[in-house]
Amino acid sequence: MSSPTYRAEDLAAFASQLLHAAGLPEDKAQAVSTILVEGDLMGHSTHGLALLAPYLGEIERGAMTRAGHPTVIADAPAAVTWDGRRLPGPWLVLQAMDLATERARRCGTGTVVIRRSHHIACLAAYHRRATEQGLLMLLICSDPNAASVAPFGGLDPVFTPNPVSAGIPAPDLPVVLDISTAATTNGLTNRLHQEGRRLPAAWVMDGHGRPSDDPAVLFREPKGTILPLGGTDAGHKGYGLSLLVEAVTGGLAGHGRADPPEGWGATVFLQIMDPRAFAGLDAFMRQTGAVAQRCRAARPADDARPVRLPGEQGLKLAAQQRERGVALYPAIMPSLQPWADKLGVALPAARP
Amino acid sequence: MSSPTYRAEDLAAFASQLLHAAGLPEDKAQAVSTILVEGDLMGHSTHGLALLAPYLGEIERGAMTRAGHPTVIADAPAAVTWDGRRLPGPWLVLQAMDLATERARRCGTGTVVIRRSHHIACLAAYHRRATEQGLLMLLICSDPNAASVAPFGGLDPVFTPNPVSAGIPAPDLPVVLDISTAATTNGLTNRLHQEGRRLPAAWVMDGHGRPSDDPAVLFREPKGTILPLGGTDAGHKGYGLSLLVEAVTGGLAGHGRADPPEGWGATVFLQIMDPRAFAGLDAFMRQTGAVAQRCRAARPADDARPVRLPGEQGLKLAAQQRERGVALYPAIMPSLQPWADKLGVALPAARP
Repeated sequence: MSSPTYRAEDLAAFASQLLHAAGLPEDKAQAVSTILVEGDLMGHSTHGLALLAPYLGEIERGAMTRAGHPTVIADAPAAVTWDGRRLPGPWLVLQAMDLATERARRCGTGTVVIRRSHHIACLAAYHRRATEQGLLMLLICSDPNAASVAPFGGLDPVFTPNPVSAGIPAPDLPVVLDISTAATTNGLTNRLHQEGRRLPAAWVMDGHGRPSDDPAVLFREPKGTILPLGGTDAGHKGYGLSLLVEAVTGGLAGHGRADPPEGWGATVFLQIMDPRAFAGLDAFMRQTGAVAQRCRAARPADDARPVRLPGEQGLKLAAQQRERGVALYPAIMPSLQPWADKLGVALPAARP
Repeated sequence: MSSPTYRAEDLAAFASQLLHAAGLPEDKAQAVSTILVEGDLMGHSTHGLALLAPYLGEIERGAMTRAGHPTVIADAPAAVTWDGRRLPGPWLVLQAMDLATERARRCGTGTVVIRRSHHIACLAAYHRRATEQGLLMLLICSDPNAASVAPFGGLDPVFTPNPVSAGIPAPDLPVVLDISTAATTNGLTNRLHQEGRRLPAAWVMDGHGRPSDDPAVLFREPKGTILPLGGTDAGHKGYGLSLLVEAVTGGLAGHGRADPPEGWGATVFLQIMDPRAFAGLDAFMRQTGAVAQRCRAARPADDARPVRLPGEQGLKLAAQQRERGVALYPAIMPSLQPWADKLGVALPAARP
């Protein structure tokens, strides 16, 4: 028996109705639901509709602001700083993309930094909108309210897994990367721990600094931490990248780990670069095309696994699931059933 | 018997005299020698004066342009693109820093991308000049003329180790990171191979895709490659970062792996961000200070090795060596002796 699949539009409409019923205005409900479903379409099952129940909980307890606009903290020609007032993250990011695009078209690059955004879901879900316009986008965030990654050589957590994502226009598919500067994410370690499973490699360490593939060490006293990218031998690199992420998020936004925690959220750095303002879009595509072609042409170490480009699998899966239906991670729909009941929204019908 | 040490000024004067005698105008000779000596001061012994003999060879055979200025390819308010005409890399980068600083003060951020620069030496050596002005700088490069790193899952090299470096203003010392998006660098693998030594961990793989700590696999048929950052279990992350480096260097510069190789060089992405244009420099320092303080306060996994910040060791070593003399890597002065003889420049005196 295979698990049920859903039409992407049905899932988005369902999510949007729930968010609207919970109190978000329609534009914000739609922005959030679109980005969440995009995450599931691309196969990022910890960062799609798996987040909807927690988001609804945040709205209910007033921890996610329902209405209004971000406050402008600073506005320079190529750099804008917002206070997101804990508004829904996906809506804020989509607004910031529009603004950064406008500035990039005028100045060459456009940067928007947002303090006090709520959580922004799946970073990979945003890039297609920029690459389709021939724009390169960086999207980077941290959450000053949490810490699960220690500095290299240390035992006490200082950082979130601090993701760096980018969308790079290329002749066929864009390159979409979305990586943590830690060895793995909170989403994956939480899920595998709940399911009593192990990580693919020693991506965490226990409270004494011993590397482990068991996510349970993060939940047991003395508490372990997620290793920085590079692990025990090259973790100074992931550590350095984590510090850079903190600088361009909390540092530039002027809000973060120096302030009292406010709850689940994100500090966001978004930068759009317009290749037309540099050597031109054709010249850009010629180079990214040549590099992509060389990667695809590289002989695979394992014949069964040809070399792929970052995002390729997700983008292809999204196209396929848009046509044939979205296979949700099994725990997701049950997590939404109580919300659907409570808010009087009908569950989406599974595809026949 | 300890190895000889030299006064930093004597080394810089010596290097500058050699470069000037070889044909560089004084401003360029001084820029290159300053940056090379800065590399040795910080302990980056493969990327300091170890590069001087090869640079002199490049000047002699006309592969490094001696005089003139870069050509402006494009000039937007916050983004400038240069053709470096194979001029000396350190001189080009210092010029680009001045321009990017001016643009960042006006627009919030300033980006300069340089195609066809000659090699730019030690990336960490530049940042102090920006952080001292309260500016955050990113310096990223690739060399389209070489390839030693394969895409994740592949056997054929596509990338150089594609470094990402950053200087982050912080209350005490700035944070200066300088990391390769591969597991290690060409400089280190070349040196250890010549000396018949092993790497600290399995940072390379042989021509069949088997991980190894022996740099000799890079020089033996079928040729091996340097692993991406993240190695065999998380190398998709280093691979993604390498592609991002290619996009912002070769892509934005419109020159790179799609073009015929021109010899040893660099494509450079330099971005300066002015925290004053975002939430303010004080707010920035408050955040980076809090994060740095938490890192330093983290309990070390090994009591003998307290947690450090990236660049801390190099900046402290530089201050110490400026006072007590620079201990050059043993092979360096012998590599310069023939050039000193040939160009009629006296070797610097070792300190008593």
